[in-house]
Amino acid sequence: MDTRALTATQPATRIEAVMAAVRARIASRALSAGARLPSVRAQAKAMGVSVSTVVEAYERLAAEGAIRARPGSGFYVAGPPAPLALAEIGPRLDRAVDPLWISRQSLEAGGEALKPGCGWLPADWMFEAGLRRGLRTLARAPAPDLTDYATPRGPAGLRAVLARRLAGNGVEVAPERLLLTESGTHAIDLVCRFLLEPGDAVLVDDPCYFNFHALLKAHRAKVVGVRWTPTGPDLDAFATALERHAPRLYITNSAIQNPTGATLSPAVAHRLLQLAERAALVIVEDDIFADFETVPAPRLAAFDGLSRVVQIGSFSKSLSAAARCGYIAARADWVESLTDLKIATSFGGGRLDAALVQAALTDGGYRRHMEGVRQRLARAMEATAARLRPLGIEPWLEPRAGMFLWCRLPAGIDAAALARAALAEGVVLAPGNAFSPSGTAGGFMRFNVAQSLEPRLFEVLARALDTLAPSRAPA
Amino acid sequence: MDTRALTATQPATRIEAVMAAVRARIASRALSAGARLPSVRAQAKAMGVSVSTVVEAYERLAAEGAIRARPGSGFYVAGPPAPLALAEIGPRLDRAVDPLWISRQSLEAGGEALKPGCGWLPADWMFEAGLRRGLRTLARAPAPDLTDYATPRGPAGLRAVLARRLAGNGVEVAPERLLLTESGTHAIDLVCRFLLEPGDAVLVDDPCYFNFHALLKAHRAKVVGVRWTPTGPDLDAFATALERHAPRLYITNSAIQNPTGATLSPAVAHRLLQLAERAALVIVEDDIFADFETVPAPRLAAFDGLSRVVQIGSFSKSLSAAARCGYIAARADWVESLTDLKIATSFGGGRLDAALVQAALTDGGYRRHMEGVRQRLARAMEATAARLRPLGIEPWLEPRAGMFLWCRLPAGIDAAALARAALAEGVVLAPGNAFSPSGTAGGFMRFNVAQSLEPRLFEVLARALDTLAPSRAPA
Repeated sequence: MDTRALTATQPATRIEAVMAAVRARIASRALSAGARLPSVRAQAKAMGVSVSTVVEAYERLAAEGAIRARPGSGFYVAGPPAPLALAEIGPRLDRAVDPLWISRQSLEAGGEALKPGCGWLPADWMFEAGLRRGLRTLARAPAPDLTDYATPRGPAGLRAVLARRLAGNGVEVAPERLLLTESGTHAIDLVCRFLLEPGDAVLVDDPCYFNFHALLKAHRAKVVGVRWTPTGPDLDAFATALERHAPRLYITNSAIQNPTGATLSPAVAHRLLQLAERAALVIVEDDIFADFETVPAPRLAAFDGLSRVVQIGSFSKSLSAAARCGYIAARADWVESLTDLKIATSFGGGRLDAALVQAALTDGGYRRHMEGVRQRLARAMEATAARLRPLGIEPWLEPRAGMFLWCRLPAGIDAAALARAALAEGVVLAPGNAFSPSGTAGGFMRFNVAQSLEPRLFEVLARALDTLAPSRAPA
Repeated sequence: MDTRALTATQPATRIEAVMAAVRARIASRALSAGARLPSVRAQAKAMGVSVSTVVEAYERLAAEGAIRARPGSGFYVAGPPAPLALAEIGPRLDRAVDPLWISRQSLEAGGEALKPGCGWLPADWMFEAGLRRGLRTLARAPAPDLTDYATPRGPAGLRAVLARRLAGNGVEVAPERLLLTESGTHAIDLVCRFLLEPGDAVLVDDPCYFNFHALLKAHRAKVVGVRWTPTGPDLDAFATALERHAPRLYITNSAIQNPTGATLSPAVAHRLLQLAERAALVIVEDDIFADFETVPAPRLAAFDGLSRVVQIGSFSKSLSAAARCGYIAARADWVESLTDLKIATSFGGGRLDAALVQAALTDGGYRRHMEGVRQRLARAMEATAARLRPLGIEPWLEPRAGMFLWCRLPAGIDAAALARAALAEGVVLAPGNAFSPSGTAGGFMRFNVAQSLEPRLFEVLARALDTLAPSRAPA
């Protein structure tokens, strides 16, 4: 018999049974840290023991530190409070299609890995010469540019440059309605913090950029995918989703959609805005691929005049991902509140990075550089498609521009299995379901054509396909 | 009579009365966008009209777009969803003591304004030469340093440098347990996102850094102030707050407290950690003023071994606020989850800024530079106190180091009124209640001694004090 029981007025075994039951529920996380335990009375009734037995069991658990009493409010599971682990919100995904896992694989991959699954250009495709010139100019800039906080909206010089760039795409916006952020993702995050409550529904394209899923998970939003077509979202599905889910937001790409490379048609854009108007829906338009366009696509922000559309963007894909700078263009009153929120949650903005981005964007060589990148991408697009087709990997669409080729795999091949097999050979792929909220893109793969130039990639793919579908003849 | 009434089966005036009542409640924001309207039955009963009158009124309001039906769930106020306006959470503060307002005033003030209320050093006190050297070095760095995303935790080089710096203050942490962030504020924001639920109680020092209030407001946390003494928080008040509010977090400064300049004593640190242990409280220790210390103060993170203490910091005060870089040192499993959260909400980290911070921290001149800053601050501290005393403004404490002097104003002088009067003359002050969650510091003012060197400041203060307390003789 437990020696402690000698001092107890209750049979030790009953007290211990209650303690064991509570411990088991904590261990199984049926009761997680911070959770309230059943009341003494309820527990007594449930276990068929006396109230004083439960009181003694709870007191002992509290003395052990397993639970703690809050005066007047009962007992709670102790331990560090249950943190917001993204992996624990919603069902645990297969690592191979977990958006966060793919991001981290891509970001962590060493220099020798092939990364056709990543979402950016190789370092030697970026505007290196302009960045070096910009850094040398910054090294001679007035002291405050190097040492001081930026103004709350971000440096006026860069906002003026951005306003002119946006006007070039038909988006008329005064620099005062632009808020600089640390990145495009930070821009969307601020808008979500501003507009969303946990549980709110948010529409995204199915498939869409995979980090939208991770971001919306962090906001505990209900992600609703709308089937994406070569000219934009399927409007019937969109209208149905509005009816059924009364979403707060729709987040989409303008210019060149990620992952499909498709472009919104003017007719779909117009109809989409009508539906949004009727449903009081706010649209976040992510214009990050603006500088990759060869033929300008319609901008929802231009059609709508930035009334219910918020446009965001950044320069991570075209200029530098090492310098962090994005922007939000929105209604004046929203920009005011978003600025408060930015200060509260990150204080200043990156004045140095903004200065570098401004120097590079206004560098005489930038336009020429991007022209070169677009031509190089067009060639890589053709070459990649030509090398994938013999493997039975077929582009869903031939994009007008951009770096992504969204491809259907041979029948019966699971993209996640292919990604796992390729990873074993040092190749990071981006399997379809990482992009698909409905999980219906298991037969698709996104290829970044700028990262698909090494012949080894196609050898690895051929071998892996062969293993996964033994009946197929090697390509 | 309204022509629409001719087709209605209900008397037009009653339908219109219901419509007018709903419109008035929307206009007054008694019903805000997204709010659910009373049920048809409840509304009918409340207004003494028939159910069909309310149905017709709701339908018409829906046709107008003022409200919208959600199938099976009733009617809701339409319009853009109610956004999270920080100003609207909690009571609206007097602008002169609103933390966000003071931040924005300081950040927006032109070059000619005096800013004794701001929280940073003048540009010409910062490590300008080292930053220029760093930028020139960066201009010659390998391409990926200029163009690519950082690894998820941030560049390993800087994390190794930080681990050595932390070890110097007794905080032993492997570089893998360090996560780089965009700023110190961003670091705290990530920890709050990770650990807090809306409504959770968070302890802060009273007074404390004012942006903690704005940040916690954005998290909808319940902010509980604990009286701060010259050796740390009042431990009785701390214990009572733990009992009464069962807080999740305590956020505090190590080294040199903002705004008082006080330093935690080892005895208080030890007792504090015992209380935290018992209450399963997590502590965020903001070590942003580390490099300003002349005598090393105890670090909670060192005592606790980074078990329930999370240490954060940044280089905005000592090195550059234009380059954004902060860090989190925490338990390994928490760092893993915080990294996921960082990627989801801001994707990459600032590789370029991290490289610049690393170059400056490891620059042979940095130690000498900070030694010079500390001496200069000590002289400015003495000079400022000497000029304030004749005005009847008395330091609460003579800080060992740092840039802040927390002062008691002459009896009967309200700090907010003084701040308003000074602002009219181009002087941005930081009145006490901006720092005090309990609003009990209305007779205090924080002076940044490095920003208090202009004789004009004291002339403005003398004049304003004179106006606010006409019975006093001019100083």
